[in-house]
Amino acid sequence: MVGEHTSKQFDAELEAVRARVLQMGGLVESQVRLAMAALIAGDLNQMNVIVDNDFQVNTLEMEIDEACSRIIARRQPAASDLRVLLTIVKTITDLERIGDSAKKIARMGILLSERNSLYLPRYSQLEYATSLALEMLRKSLDAFARLDLNVAAQVVRQDEKVDDEFQSIMRYLITFMMEDPRTISTSLELLFVAKAIERIGDHAKNIAEYLIYLVKGRDMRHASVEEIEREVLDSPSPRSN
Amino acid sequence: MVGEHTSKQFDAELEAVRARVLQMGGLVESQVRLAMAALIAGDLNQMNVIVDNDFQVNTLEMEIDEACSRIIARRQPAASDLRVLLTIVKTITDLERIGDSAKKIARMGILLSERNSLYLPRYSQLEYATSLALEMLRKSLDAFARLDLNVAAQVVRQDEKVDDEFQSIMRYLITFMMEDPRTISTSLELLFVAKAIERIGDHAKNIAEYLIYLVKGRDMRHASVEEIEREVLDSPSPRSN
Repeated sequence: MVGEHTSKQFDAELEAVRARVLQMGGLVESQVRLAMAALIAGDLNQMNVIVDNDFQVNTLEMEIDEACSRIIARRQPAASDLRVLLTIVKTITDLERIGDSAKKIARMGILLSERNSLYLPRYSQLEYATSLALEMLRKSLDAFARLDLNVAAQVVRQDEKVDDEFQSIMRYLITFMMEDPRTISTSLELLFVAKAIERIGDHAKNIAEYLIYLVKGRDMRHASVEEIEREVLDSPSPRSN
Repeated sequence: MVGEHTSKQFDAELEAVRARVLQMGGLVESQVRLAMAALIAGDLNQMNVIVDNDFQVNTLEMEIDEACSRIIARRQPAASDLRVLLTIVKTITDLERIGDSAKKIARMGILLSERNSLYLPRYSQLEYATSLALEMLRKSLDAFARLDLNVAAQVVRQDEKVDDEFQSIMRYLITFMMEDPRTISTSLELLFVAKAIERIGDHAKNIAEYLIYLVKGRDMRHASVEEIEREVLDSPSPRSN
């Protein structure tokens, strides 16, 4: 039957796009992790590799975007499937920005190594902030894969911790700069690294909020953490998909 | 005829959504302009008004997003109209982020006024950078309204000027901080204002690039300024729309 055939094709195409989103998520996660490792190790080669590899992230974004447009135009999906596709279109933009943040971390590392600033103050705190942000990213992708709102709500909650870490790092760097003004340029580069990590958390939170909107039909993007958690607690166990 | 009636309805709905995008653009432009004026005048009340009004920006984003989803689901538009709608979905995300930048400028102004830092170094340069970014925003909205690729290409070119202004402001603030470490907190708040202005330019550039993709069918989001200008020069005069 034509209808059934088309429906199976659509399901296959949608599944393929979802898989590519997870692939893109894995790529940007790797970029972030490697960028922070390169910064801390002072590995200039690795930093340049991160910057060069960013084009792969951009290429994936454009390909997935185009695939979504084609599916929407050709399959004219029902409202619920359309919402999945629009969620994907927004999600990949945030993933691409996470890739930009990884590139920013690598670029700051290159500037730091040009200035021969081998001593990095508080990089264990930067590492910790990065691990929090990466956990948020992994959870947002997991929530996307399984449409699990509880995990999505955890991501939103965790963003506050990343923001707090950023504030703490900034306060430390301010003190550091005041005690030794010769460290100002270096400290600013580290501040931009901390800011890039904070932005990664923000983008992971955006992805989680798109998911909550997708499943609940309520736009949570500008709701408080408490409102989101209340909304999610009303939710049954994850829909099998 | 049903087909004609539906087509007229669709055209009317699409036109209504396009008008709302321009309305949202006007709102965020106003937020940015007023935030910078409030910062320079040290007008704490006005700064709080900007922060409070941000919810209007978010509300518009959610309403336009929802309107696009409904149109796509109900009207099942042809590929070319679908591309317009997907362009709008992405554009309003960038406009909402510009609103966030305006809120950031106002928040930094509030911190500065709490510290009684009435002397703002280089605010004429901050004003100039803001005027450049606002011009980029106005042009991107104009290009959107008229589908004018030449104006869109100008926006992309102008982003370099805003980035250069940011670098210049940062270099100045670094020197200022080194000469007087007591000004470090104030200088960082101004640096974040400069960064917010730079981000406004980036978002206006994103909007221009979505437009070039919409009209040319080629994804220019990660192309160089020169490639974009070459692409646009091949373009005939703006399509009447």
